[in-house]
Amino acid sequence: MDTKIVRYILCRMLGVEAALLLVPVLVAVIYQEKCGIVFLIPIVILCLLFWVVGRKRPEHGQIYGKEGMVIVALAWILWSLFGAMPFTLSGYIPSYVDAFFETVSGFTTTGSSIIPDVEVLPHCLLFWRSFTHWIGGMGVLVFVLVVTSLDRKNSMHLMRAEVPGPEKDKLVPKAMSTARILYGMYLTLTVIEMVFLVIGGMNLFDSMIFSFGSAGTGGFSNYADSVAHFNSAYIDGVITVFCALFGVNFALFYFMILGDFKSILKNEELRTYILLIAGATAAIMLNIHSLYPTIGKSFRYAVFQVVTVITTTGYSTADFAQWPMFSKAVLMMLTVIGACASSTGGGIKVSRLLVGIKCVKREIVQLAHPKSVGIIRIGGKKVSSDVLRTIYIYFIAYVGILIGSVVLVSLDNFDFETTFSAVLTTLGNVGPGMAKVGPMGNFAEFSPLSKLILCFDMLAGRLEIFPFLVLFTAPAWRRKF
Amino acid sequence: MDTKIVRYILCRMLGVEAALLLVPVLVAVIYQEKCGIVFLIPIVILCLLFWVVGRKRPEHGQIYGKEGMVIVALAWILWSLFGAMPFTLSGYIPSYVDAFFETVSGFTTTGSSIIPDVEVLPHCLLFWRSFTHWIGGMGVLVFVLVVTSLDRKNSMHLMRAEVPGPEKDKLVPKAMSTARILYGMYLTLTVIEMVFLVIGGMNLFDSMIFSFGSAGTGGFSNYADSVAHFNSAYIDGVITVFCALFGVNFALFYFMILGDFKSILKNEELRTYILLIAGATAAIMLNIHSLYPTIGKSFRYAVFQVVTVITTTGYSTADFAQWPMFSKAVLMMLTVIGACASSTGGGIKVSRLLVGIKCVKREIVQLAHPKSVGIIRIGGKKVSSDVLRTIYIYFIAYVGILIGSVVLVSLDNFDFETTFSAVLTTLGNVGPGMAKVGPMGNFAEFSPLSKLILCFDMLAGRLEIFPFLVLFTAPAWRRKF
Repeated sequence: MDTKIVRYILCRMLGVEAALLLVPVLVAVIYQEKCGIVFLIPIVILCLLFWVVGRKRPEHGQIYGKEGMVIVALAWILWSLFGAMPFTLSGYIPSYVDAFFETVSGFTTTGSSIIPDVEVLPHCLLFWRSFTHWIGGMGVLVFVLVVTSLDRKNSMHLMRAEVPGPEKDKLVPKAMSTARILYGMYLTLTVIEMVFLVIGGMNLFDSMIFSFGSAGTGGFSNYADSVAHFNSAYIDGVITVFCALFGVNFALFYFMILGDFKSILKNEELRTYILLIAGATAAIMLNIHSLYPTIGKSFRYAVFQVVTVITTTGYSTADFAQWPMFSKAVLMMLTVIGACASSTGGGIKVSRLLVGIKCVKREIVQLAHPKSVGIIRIGGKKVSSDVLRTIYIYFIAYVGILIGSVVLVSLDNFDFETTFSAVLTTLGNVGPGMAKVGPMGNFAEFSPLSKLILCFDMLAGRLEIFPFLVLFTAPAWRRKF
Repeated sequence: MDTKIVRYILCRMLGVEAALLLVPVLVAVIYQEKCGIVFLIPIVILCLLFWVVGRKRPEHGQIYGKEGMVIVALAWILWSLFGAMPFTLSGYIPSYVDAFFETVSGFTTTGSSIIPDVEVLPHCLLFWRSFTHWIGGMGVLVFVLVVTSLDRKNSMHLMRAEVPGPEKDKLVPKAMSTARILYGMYLTLTVIEMVFLVIGGMNLFDSMIFSFGSAGTGGFSNYADSVAHFNSAYIDGVITVFCALFGVNFALFYFMILGDFKSILKNEELRTYILLIAGATAAIMLNIHSLYPTIGKSFRYAVFQVVTVITTTGYSTADFAQWPMFSKAVLMMLTVIGACASSTGGGIKVSRLLVGIKCVKREIVQLAHPKSVGIIRIGGKKVSSDVLRTIYIYFIAYVGILIGSVVLVSLDNFDFETTFSAVLTTLGNVGPGMAKVGPMGNFAEFSPLSKLILCFDMLAGRLEIFPFLVLFTAPAWRRKF
């Protein structure tokens, strides 16, 4: 492990966080909030670190796969550790573990909260909290790639570790320019959503909070009752549509800009994603229709919840923890599946689900006809055996982390629905769970140990497990193999 | 698909079931129970089927992989359909779906019950119910192999589909003689357990019920409060030890007979199995120690529950559904893991867990050191890539069936703990779940649809999924590929 280059890049990245922390300071100035001053403390520390270690690149330093994984994992932890400071320093979240949980939940675009009454927070903290969603959505490192400069080879290994989805090679080769295109589209879509929300009667601040939340598929809100606060079919609709868009593979937007609509229509993952949304909405509508006066209302609440859960955003317009068990089970299933690869959404991703289903099908055909040779194709292209293996192992590790976390969190002795759905929703980066951690509840009651385990789950879920496992295992730290 | 040979073998097997149904008739004669007469109806039907179709072997018939899978899956369904008849005909289980559930639960050695008060059943029905555990434990087909005769090649494909565990080749080649050795050991161990139980003060009938239950790792009891009825540390101990033994790979007993203790000590699966039992017992003891007056008592209840759950027997001496959530979560984890390969226990098997852990480890090392070549070894022997792929797909299919079943069973609108644990316990062939389906509850309240889904889960769990998936998919039924 080349620790010099790791240290150098990490401190460069912390410098970028210092710059980002200036934005909530600006918000504090606008709203004349004195507590904005607490942001200066992490800013000063981060600038010092940047100035001492991150200014000069070490000679002969090279980033390979291992360094890439470790940098990405450490970067997310460090950003969260420093990003949590303003919450505790301002006194609004007295426990630093709680503040860390809230910040991890922000950067990983989970949206689970430990704040019982979010409405008392000043604008600068609310802004920073939702801003972490927006930064984390596209990836802390992708962001850094846009604003700093690293050579091509180095960037590649970093993006490989951070961009979600099973096949990363299409986006990776021209890392720098790709990152700029991605962020351009991301910013544009976010601004368009803000415009639509302002048209619907939201003030500018709220429109930023909810656009950051949906763009990053995060789900933090500045109102206790989330999107239900506005009680507007128009706003529900806008957020539903934009969440759904942010759950789509960003490469498809790029195709759209290029006018290549054929590639979009042919995309198997997109079709499955749309089918899943339609199917789940229909199933839940049938299940909840007796709770609402009109079919229109049950459609509105069902489609909103299905979209914000499958995209792992986690906004709510209804207290779905009160819905019948079938609807809750469907939502939990969507929590596991998640959005499309290379979107800002979490979960195991629709493409991995597709590969999983095709592998099981192939196995059945091969058992019935041992001489048949089955090739797994997604969108007509063969999935290589290396990618297949990675997907298999990812499934196993996902279930393993899920079971292990449930056992440890159960030490808090909450009911099973709370315990299980808390782990499921954090590992899937959705946000709200069921029962005590439902859309009207929060994560405050968990013990510090459970909170740290759920932080691990959020980070492992967002970085798709492996960078995290590499960080926590011995082989990565040996100098030579 | 060669339907002639499939029909022939199935009807031969039904003839064997007719013979087995004579045993409870004998029990009815001994206890002078008139209702024993209802057993004659399925016996007559089965004999007719055997006489018409199963007497003469069709010429040129051959069993290949596909036919083997289909025969095994159909055999288990047919045996359960006919085996359920006495329960309904006698009027003790009026609904035929319920009786089918109870019989599937018996043959698959699950031990989940829909009978609210088991103590009113006559001896002949209680005997038949537990006898199905004993027959199903070692495998319906392995049993048939012992009593009828098929040529070597044909038997191979049948055993391959039924014997649990990822690697079947060791036991398979000499199918007939292996089956006899296995059944010999199985019978011997069962009789030894009976002797120990009778020494502890049980009457002969009870000792048979509980020996059948532990030998098959089933868990049916003739008392409402299961093993707690006897309230005897000695009986708890005997059942704990024998359940643990029946959860071990039977090949190891064969090694013991041969005096090859080195192979036993070197067995990695056995060591992991023992470690799991010890670790889980310690964890649960610490968690429940405040509920019991002495450390000895908490040890006694903890080890009993850990062993009967990991071996997927599911007997209870305590109402563990009342234990703290951590203990329940550990037990649910053991439900997923299950016993050793080639034992009578269910679950995903300890050996598959071992392979899963090793695969994740290898992936981490390869990510850190891309040039490293990792070979997965179990007990020093390389696991082939074909076996690895089957294990991966098995994991995916297992989780897929679990999620799908939870969603469908949730239509009954029970609480999440009941719904989830009902599916988990039937798919793992354990028996009791938590909440409403805990050791003091039963499965009677589920809708017929849910009961049929849970039957599917029990059968899929017992036959390790694939024979069942082959049966229900189109490719198996095409004559030519």
